[in-house]
Amino acid sequence: MNPITHKTAGVPTLKRMPLYLRLLRRMKENGDKYASGTVVANELGLDPIVVRKDLAITGAVGRPRLGFPMDEIITAIEDFLDWTNITDAILVGVGNLGTALLGYKGFEQHGMRIIAAFDSNPEIIGKTVHGKTVLDVSELTAFAQRMHVQIGVLSVTASVAQGVADAMIEGGIRGIWNFTPTTLDVPKHVIIQREELASSLAVLSHRLLLESNR
Amino acid sequence: MNPITHKTAGVPTLKRMPLYLRLLRRMKENGDKYASGTVVANELGLDPIVVRKDLAITGAVGRPRLGFPMDEIITAIEDFLDWTNITDAILVGVGNLGTALLGYKGFEQHGMRIIAAFDSNPEIIGKTVHGKTVLDVSELTAFAQRMHVQIGVLSVTASVAQGVADAMIEGGIRGIWNFTPTTLDVPKHVIIQREELASSLAVLSHRLLLESNR
Repeated sequence: MNPITHKTAGVPTLKRMPLYLRLLRRMKENGDKYASGTVVANELGLDPIVVRKDLAITGAVGRPRLGFPMDEIITAIEDFLDWTNITDAILVGVGNLGTALLGYKGFEQHGMRIIAAFDSNPEIIGKTVHGKTVLDVSELTAFAQRMHVQIGVLSVTASVAQGVADAMIEGGIRGIWNFTPTTLDVPKHVIIQREELASSLAVLSHRLLLESNR
Repeated sequence: MNPITHKTAGVPTLKRMPLYLRLLRRMKENGDKYASGTVVANELGLDPIVVRKDLAITGAVGRPRLGFPMDEIITAIEDFLDWTNITDAILVGVGNLGTALLGYKGFEQHGMRIIAAFDSNPEIIGKTVHGKTVLDVSELTAFAQRMHVQIGVLSVTASVAQGVADAMIEGGIRGIWNFTPTTLDVPKHVIIQREELASSLAVLSHRLLLESNR
């Protein structure tokens, strides 16, 4: 693998990558052969300097006056995010949020496939939700081991989050996407990506307040 | 209002505020009278310098060797985020994700109350979801105007997102929490907070990849 594609990038850069990728895939469908940083910046309402820096970090090389060759820049971003490989994931907690996540069509396009769902509620176990049969959470560790699952999506009640995370880690899972408000205690090698709705709301509230005080 | 509480903070700081608030409320319940930056940092696994800077921006003043008086720091964060005032919101799009959001208990604690839900599907209109009757989306603009709604939560299909956002803005909504992958075109005074699952997944994938290349 190209070491350039494994540079560390800041979180804001990483978060913008999927926006670039979606736009570039659409531009490609429209027949565009090159993508310039300026066009990408305009389309997404971002600063061109930021866009150029972000795209450069993927290792793709732009052509003067033309921009990046379309296939090259798309592949560079996909490689950078490791989205050319589909990573297997499981989801635990098939409540409203879990159901919504199971129904989300975009994950495979973004390098993740949810291969199984788990719950502890006997009324939910055995049901088929968005094409996946819900398994008993007691089978989670063995399943993750057997299938070499890399990512665990955690959408359970806060009070059981730590226990389920422990079971995931025991099963060899290395990345947990945490949709619960629980701060998880995990070994150092395990990566936690926290999805904190309250945090987004904090940003929105504060910006609304600043705006109304102008 | 105290102008100190309306300092601009960076997005990472804003995103940490709800974490502080939740921890501090729990510490208060446990009878703690003071909160030191060091304790908060340890509990949340954050850098103490970062925590001290974040808390200072709220205008709260720590006492030497004791830390921040508990009620003072909690109120300072709530004021900073404008979470002492509950802001009215409406939600449009009562699919799986919309239903999950309507069922989320944490919003009122974080300064937002969803007062109504809307959909365009005749099979969903009129149903009660998590205690809220789903209204026809055609009534959205008039409702928002009449009730002076500030925030619109957008959980519709991507293809109708712009149209619904336009209707929200026509109704006087100033902040849109966008759960769709659509880049919205809005007037300058309208604030968009984008909730991008693919972006979080990008961060997680990239960190997993870096970790496995170590």
